[in-house]
Amino acid sequence: VKTTIDAYELLERVRDKAPVVHHLTNWVTIYDCAQIVKTLGASPVMAHAPEEAADMTNIASAVVLNIGTLTVDFIEAMKVAARAANRKRIPVILDVCGAGATSLRDAKVLELLDQTKINIIKGNASEIARVSGENVQTQGVDTTDVAGDLKKLAQSLAVRRHATVVATGKVDVVADSTGITLIKNGNALMSRVVGTGCMAASVIGTFAAVEADYRLAAAAGLACYEIAAELAMPKSQGPASFKQMLFDCLYSLDRPTVERLQRIEIVIG
Amino acid sequence: VKTTIDAYELLERVRDKAPVVHHLTNWVTIYDCAQIVKTLGASPVMAHAPEEAADMTNIASAVVLNIGTLTVDFIEAMKVAARAANRKRIPVILDVCGAGATSLRDAKVLELLDQTKINIIKGNASEIARVSGENVQTQGVDTTDVAGDLKKLAQSLAVRRHATVVATGKVDVVADSTGITLIKNGNALMSRVVGTGCMAASVIGTFAAVEADYRLAAAAGLACYEIAAELAMPKSQGPASFKQMLFDCLYSLDRPTVERLQRIEIVIG
Amino acid sequence: VKTTIDAYELLERVRDKAPVVHHLTNWVTIYDCAQIVKTLGASPVMAHAPEEAADMTNIASAVVLNIGTLTVDFIEAMKVAARAANRKRIPVILDVCGAGATSLRDAKVLELLDQTKINIIKGNASEIARVSGENVQTQGVDTTDVAGDLKKLAQSLAVRRHATVVATGKVDVVADSTGITLIKNGNALMSRVVGTGCMAASVIGTFAAVEADYRLAAAAGLACYEIAAELAMPKSQGPASFKQMLFDCLYSLDRPTVERLQRIEIVIG
Repeated sequence: VKTTIDAYELLERVRDKAPVVHHLTNWVTIYDCAQIVKTLGASPVMAHAPEEAADMTNIASAVVLNIGTLTVDFIEAMKVAARAANRKRIPVILDVCGAGATSLRDAKVLELLDQTKINIIKGNASEIARVSGENVQTQGVDTTDVAGDLKKLAQSLAVRRHATVVATGKVDVVADSTGITLIKNGNALMSRVVGTGCMAASVIGTFAAVEADYRLAAAAGLACYEIAAELAMPKSQGPASFKQMLFDCLYSLDRPTVERLQRIEIVIG
Repeated sequence: VKTTIDAYELLERVRDKAPVVHHLTNWVTIYDCAQIVKTLGASPVMAHAPEEAADMTNIASAVVLNIGTLTVDFIEAMKVAARAANRKRIPVILDVCGAGATSLRDAKVLELLDQTKINIIKGNASEIARVSGENVQTQGVDTTDVAGDLKKLAQSLAVRRHATVVATGKVDVVADSTGITLIKNGNALMSRVVGTGCMAASVIGTFAAVEADYRLAAAAGLACYEIAAELAMPKSQGPASFKQMLFDCLYSLDRPTVERLQRIEIVIG
Repeated sequence: VKTTIDAYELLERVRDKAPVVHHLTNWVTIYDCAQIVKTLGASPVMAHAPEEAADMTNIASAVVLNIGTLTVDFIEAMKVAARAANRKRIPVILDVCGAGATSLRDAKVLELLDQTKINIIKGNASEIARVSGENVQTQGVDTTDVAGDLKKLAQSLAVRRHATVVATGKVDVVADSTGITLIKNGNALMSRVVGTGCMAASVIGTFAAVEADYRLAAAAGLACYEIAAELAMPKSQGPASFKQMLFDCLYSLDRPTVERLQRIEIVIG
């Protein structure tokens, strides 16, 4: 049983292979999702027309879905992209952004999970609780505390959905049927910047494009991303300069820094 | 008759209560609208699917509508959200972005005003003039000078529509049937940054979420926002760094700064 | 035959005339497209409802189309705007963003070229090759090398489509039936920032709004934009601060700087 992972090695692989990461995402943070993928050294595309969602998936190595500004039609386009990804056997990441806030969101998340194969389900603690069937009222899209053991919740959902589950928070929980990995990097300012959650899903998708062990990919991606946030913190004067520095620090992240700062703990597995 | 207001007290209330502010807004500045709300310490949501616009309103404390990139369907979703807000008796702010530029915009603004209760009508001088029935040709979405007395125009619209009217400009005019408040903060660089007008509407919506006197809420919100712009100015090298610093300065705004810099004048009321 | 151009004179004209530049563009970079136009001193509008696309064109001096996040309906709205621009005899710029990536994109680019008059066709080398009928597989929206002579390809497309053709890259090629202009400004970091290509199209559209010789307009616009990128480079710590500085440097660009740094070469014409 390994007790840690080489997060930097996966970042290097992203930079070497420059995978295309296809997105069907929300209109609020779509730019940041694209830029975080490019900052990692990969190549983002975002194409939501149902007529080309499958074609675009065919030139991609991962698909990131985010329901932040969903419509009924948009969800149908997501299904087209997800099914194309399933056929091509490339990973599909679903950010269940705002799950629990409205019944439409809950219904559409279930539709996506039931009608396509989602490889990685990602949300904050309350969103993951909701998708797990726990009765939690989301306060908009911001994290709220969740009663109960998040680790158990995430792993139970992972087993039931044959997926990797990522519950982000002060400590990120990444669970699959074989184990749980905790990522303890990051800082509180991230929660004051719109889009840090959406970007996390794009980062995970990018790492999953180059690593078939999705628990490993998610943990390594989150660690690199959150280490960049830690580096950005002292260079910032507030949330906007912090976001800018997060991008800049991620762009030039090197092995000694990642090795020195990564705080990843493999609990089981 | 008060001659000034305690703008900072309202900002503190926003930070304490962290209200959810729901948006149906345009695709150009949607990120900035979300981020300015979060920077104030509140919680933005943006959900435009007609199937969830009412549900999302039910977890919110204010609704901000902005017609910047309107479509016919999008306006219908706005009506759903506005009516849910009306039932819940939470404020609805309408940014009449680009009113006067096309007949579609003029027609849809009237529909929203006639078919729902809009509590705060916000625009620049030429947009407010257009909504008032004055014959002004908008030059895109940028402010143009308006003949006649803007204060009279705004208050007349306020009386006719039983609303608070905000006309932004070098001096912002906030009018309701009982009085007029002028805000003289801000600077010229704001007009060189796309989204400063849209963000102003989001700020007003956020303050109106915690203060039922909407003229007071709008004046306090605009003052805080524009004081942040004044603080950002000397830290900037151009419009992009100015926008970043505006967010950062708003995030850490404190009472002594607001008290020292606020330039609010209650003309009547 | 002139061997160079006065790029700064055109920038001054943009600043003096402040033309309205209408966009039907993608949701990823729409903010940056608006902000780059405003930073030049012009006035951006973005309105995609088919009911107002013609009306908005009537208050504009140029129309920029970008198929980055196309849908079938959106292309129809583009046709409405393009035809209104054709009637008004103002330039239409088409950014063939992602051409070659899917058959939908290829088909819709051809529809726009066949059913409306496009005055300036803009893409990276692989996109322009694809529109020219060369068999190139685009890797997402990022530039790939193209076999063959890009100058010949661009001019041949220009002749066939009676248009000015802009192929961006390390060296930008601007071709029309009478000649070719090369712009050698810019730097490699531009390709690490999402939206630099889209913004280039907006810059070209803005310059074409004030100069009827579109080859001259495109060359001058690209030179000014890329000189700003060169100035931004040493002030940057990575892609995000670079983008911010690009805006700030473009905002304050002056004649001595442009004259000192512009690297424009008129090959033929």
